[in-house]
Amino acid sequence: MVRYKITFAYDGTNFAGFQVQPHQRTVEQTLVTIVNRMAKNPEPAIKVVGSGRTDSGVHALNQVAHFDFPFVIPEESMVRALNSQLPLDMMVKKAEIVDENFHARFSAHHKHYRYRVQQGEFVNPFRRNYTAHYKYPLDLAVMNQAAQDLVGEHDFTSFVAAGAQVKSNVRTIYSAKVWREESSGEVCFDFVGNGFLYNQVRIMVALLLEIGNGQRPVDAIPRVLAAKDRQQARVTAPAAGLYLMSVDYGEEKD
Amino acid sequence: MVRYKITFAYDGTNFAGFQVQPHQRTVEQTLVTIVNRMAKNPEPAIKVVGSGRTDSGVHALNQVAHFDFPFVIPEESMVRALNSQLPLDMMVKKAEIVDENFHARFSAHHKHYRYRVQQGEFVNPFRRNYTAHYKYPLDLAVMNQAAQDLVGEHDFTSFVAAGAQVKSNVRTIYSAKVWREESSGEVCFDFVGNGFLYNQVRIMVALLLEIGNGQRPVDAIPRVLAAKDRQQARVTAPAAGLYLMSVDYGEEKD
Repeated sequence: MVRYKITFAYDGTNFAGFQVQPHQRTVEQTLVTIVNRMAKNPEPAIKVVGSGRTDSGVHALNQVAHFDFPFVIPEESMVRALNSQLPLDMMVKKAEIVDENFHARFSAHHKHYRYRVQQGEFVNPFRRNYTAHYKYPLDLAVMNQAAQDLVGEHDFTSFVAAGAQVKSNVRTIYSAKVWREESSGEVCFDFVGNGFLYNQVRIMVALLLEIGNGQRPVDAIPRVLAAKDRQQARVTAPAAGLYLMSVDYGEEKD
Repeated sequence: MVRYKITFAYDGTNFAGFQVQPHQRTVEQTLVTIVNRMAKNPEPAIKVVGSGRTDSGVHALNQVAHFDFPFVIPEESMVRALNSQLPLDMMVKKAEIVDENFHARFSAHHKHYRYRVQQGEFVNPFRRNYTAHYKYPLDLAVMNQAAQDLVGEHDFTSFVAAGAQVKSNVRTIYSAKVWREESSGEVCFDFVGNGFLYNQVRIMVALLLEIGNGQRPVDAIPRVLAAKDRQQARVTAPAAGLYLMSVDYGEEKD
């Protein structure tokens, strides 16, 4: 068996998220079906392990997964073979033969998420599945200032979706930035961290929108963090605005 | 009755084109339903007249239509009222009360269409419904040079879809341009003309792609035009890349 690391993009609009679910079209299931077909039904069936889940409607520009394949195919041929069978809303960008110690989830060093918001009174029809829509004024300088309070190691209990169960809600955010993209006019939120809790980015964005619109003060975040109470951050921004931009595995420099 | 001119955008992906068709979701039917609902069922039912049809999958940034409404609503209120009931893949940008002599189709002076092509070996999942995909090399300078042979008054019989029946296939193209958009890397084809035959833009684009890839010489267009034979231009580019950018009514300067 040879282990492949693949880097791939998907438009999350028509997927019920990443993870396999019965009777649902998911990213993981789509890959599992194709990889096993390419391997001509080996026993046991090949599993595809992603760097982490994304929810229904969430997009990825550079998601990472690994799988163990029964025979060697050159890396570029693996990219072409996968893309020739994938639906058009998924695209493999890179395939690499990696050491068997590489694990798409456990070896991940940090992740970069971006969230996109379109402003304006009405929804731009072409961006309805690719941004959230916010019709009220926003002070981006205030939002960017407030976002810096998220940077560092924190207990993000106030920013985790109800029902999520993990051992610890402590995560580290290495950088946070709120800015306007000139070419599109869209507001972008960039977060780089060692891991994110379920819905964490979407809850952080919703809180920053409230701050940017003056519904909360610029220094609201330290108090919300300290409360360790999900009721403090009431809103979750829609899935459509969220993109997994990249997963970094530390040792690589490319 | 007061006549309204509306300017609106739509993502054509999930519409079976502009024109009403039985049991199909079309742009015209969507507007007719909403306008009649707003007017509270007057007799006779209000018709919505577009500047022209667009096919299934074709987009519009500034399509124009007119309709006669039984009572006066301020222009900005009309925009808001329509948008509050329209689906998210349509958006009204402007509503104007116009003279009863204004006709969205017959008063149109010229139209601007843009066609978008993404290059690269594989389809970008996020652009699959918004561009055509072309994986081979293209010489944009050659394409732009060839496109100039389309400018002027010509009999475009070689560029009309089989089965289309109109009195004359003579149309005038005022300008044609092939260029690469920097922010997206996409190849754009812009055509401004006094009217376009069924599938004309998509057939012109397909021919220019063949020229840009070297499958036809740069001077192929005059001979194709002169032949007045649809078999000369064999291919029609996909609907997803085509956008109605604007409809100009001559007297307006805004």
